[in-house]
Amino acid sequence: MPIPRAPRIAIAGATGAVGHTLIELIEKRDFPFSAIDLLASTRSSGKTLKVKGQSYPVQSLADFHFGNVHLAFFSCGTSVSRVEGRRAAMEGALVIDNTNAFRMDADTPLVVPQVNAHQLATRPTSGIIANPNCSTIPLVRLLQPIDRLYGIQQVIVSTYQAASGAGLTGIEELKSSVTQTLNAPESSDTSNRRFPVPLGFNLIPSIDVAMPTGFTLEEQKMLQESRKILEQPDLKLSATCVRVPVINGHSESAYIQCDRPVDREKVVQALRETSEVEVFDAGSGSVVYPTPRYLQNPDKVHVGRIRIDPNNPCALWLWLIADNLRIGAALNAIQIAEVLIQQADKSMAA
Amino acid sequence: MPIPRAPRIAIAGATGAVGHTLIELIEKRDFPFSAIDLLASTRSSGKTLKVKGQSYPVQSLADFHFGNVHLAFFSCGTSVSRVEGRRAAMEGALVIDNTNAFRMDADTPLVVPQVNAHQLATRPTSGIIANPNCSTIPLVRLLQPIDRLYGIQQVIVSTYQAASGAGLTGIEELKSSVTQTLNAPESSDTSNRRFPVPLGFNLIPSIDVAMPTGFTLEEQKMLQESRKILEQPDLKLSATCVRVPVINGHSESAYIQCDRPVDREKVVQALRETSEVEVFDAGSGSVVYPTPRYLQNPDKVHVGRIRIDPNNPCALWLWLIADNLRIGAALNAIQIAEVLIQQADKSMAA
Repeated sequence: MPIPRAPRIAIAGATGAVGHTLIELIEKRDFPFSAIDLLASTRSSGKTLKVKGQSYPVQSLADFHFGNVHLAFFSCGTSVSRVEGRRAAMEGALVIDNTNAFRMDADTPLVVPQVNAHQLATRPTSGIIANPNCSTIPLVRLLQPIDRLYGIQQVIVSTYQAASGAGLTGIEELKSSVTQTLNAPESSDTSNRRFPVPLGFNLIPSIDVAMPTGFTLEEQKMLQESRKILEQPDLKLSATCVRVPVINGHSESAYIQCDRPVDREKVVQALRETSEVEVFDAGSGSVVYPTPRYLQNPDKVHVGRIRIDPNNPCALWLWLIADNLRIGAALNAIQIAEVLIQQADKSMAA
Repeated sequence: MPIPRAPRIAIAGATGAVGHTLIELIEKRDFPFSAIDLLASTRSSGKTLKVKGQSYPVQSLADFHFGNVHLAFFSCGTSVSRVEGRRAAMEGALVIDNTNAFRMDADTPLVVPQVNAHQLATRPTSGIIANPNCSTIPLVRLLQPIDRLYGIQQVIVSTYQAASGAGLTGIEELKSSVTQTLNAPESSDTSNRRFPVPLGFNLIPSIDVAMPTGFTLEEQKMLQESRKILEQPDLKLSATCVRVPVINGHSESAYIQCDRPVDREKVVQALRETSEVEVFDAGSGSVVYPTPRYLQNPDKVHVGRIRIDPNNPCALWLWLIADNLRIGAALNAIQIAEVLIQQADKSMAA
């Protein structure tokens, strides 16, 4: 089923943090649709949600048939996508999946529209397009222009990831943990259902499950997904992923080793010219940076602290921040859909 | 003046966060002294503080004469140390200085007792022994055993530094920022006197002033001090230093590139055998780690997440945490003094 100019869409996981942001972006960007179905687990069905002022019932995902849907956005977690996302694709919808279920499948493109939109030229045989991990998306958007200039040899990255990456319950648990600590510092903080230990005034250097290598799945995703998106199967990228007591906005501290000596000003210039990137810079001796709580534009990747390692002229540091619910999830999904619609427009015009 | 078994000591900056911790450690470790003078700015003089159950008046540092003092601990900030610390040394006290004032001076040893206690064998001509930066101390304590095994080529480190690094006012400002945000999320948070922007639910990738290289002074200290302590003037170490909304305990994510392929189990074993280091490890496929809020023993360097980069067999990651007020400041200073007293004991016995 080709994608028309105003597709019939469905949002699976409409009541979650990413679903909420998807609806917000559909309204804000005036995303075209001719019909919309809001889906969630049976637990949430019966609720209603508003989209562009109109109320819609939340329907049970398990009971929904996707035969009439052009585009289905999925963000209900990996295990749900494996079953229901696959079913939606089989029933004819083109699925834009936000989970880890299909990202590394050979028949499923993994797309960041600003980096590898060419992967969207033909409908994938799986019927699924995967949205990368929230930490991978902003990083590859900055790596690509630097790679074009100087060739990237290795990336060493430490992340500072917000509570919202664990959904609305992650945010609530952080707030509860902080409140408990301030109000009763001597009592034990019980906010450790979503996180392995309380996150208030704490750091948790472990996101997602452990892999046999001793890395976490989150860290492994950053490596494997970056290789697939940048089409560099031998890229060396190594990460430590840390949850921090920030409500929303993932930050990353990245050390990038290039093939050739780096001219800082050229990197700054290239990033300034990169679509939807906000550069914080005031010349070579300055310390200028974004902070996650005061992000100016949640639809841009923010980058600052761009500097060359004095002991290694081929290497530079940068500090990046992106709204993980938007750029790291919902916005990337919507932008994939927007490219698909533009392409449909063009093919009809041709 | 040689250091006797129970020296006359003075604490300059007794009312601050590090001064407070110094007194706590003097009590806890039963540090021997025959007299103690507590000093602070004229603003604090008139207060009294208890040491081992006895009350002492806080005296004005500017009016105090150090002629009778064997050991003077200084932690009132760099500008005060430059004037008053220098004067204390000229008046005959051996100064253990916690600031950045003298660390890189050729006539002043920079000492982490577990790493380079041999620097304490003779009294320095400056009369001053410098205590390194709070982020440098725990890192070099782990780097040395790894360097002995595999030779360290390069260290890439991102820090996660607590509010207490900015003193008691830093802690209060973090708590106030968090409280304001939770109670009145729509109002502007005014907690930005000690920090450039509010730290509650935020990250600030800038600690101390900007240097012409675009690095901060905090980042430059980590490089220069590590080189001096490890006696490796060409060591390549590059850092990004970030303030995080944690009350106390600095964490660091370090990527260590060695000269030769690294055997993970040997590193774990060597760190387990390193004095005052607590290793979190449960075998090669495990994700085990300390967190700053739940440090088990504030007098040890905690390390976990030790793992080899699968794409680079000569490199390993580790995640370390140390109490910045103790290991990063007061405890290191006390341990310097303890070595000096032991040496005096030995030389008298000889």
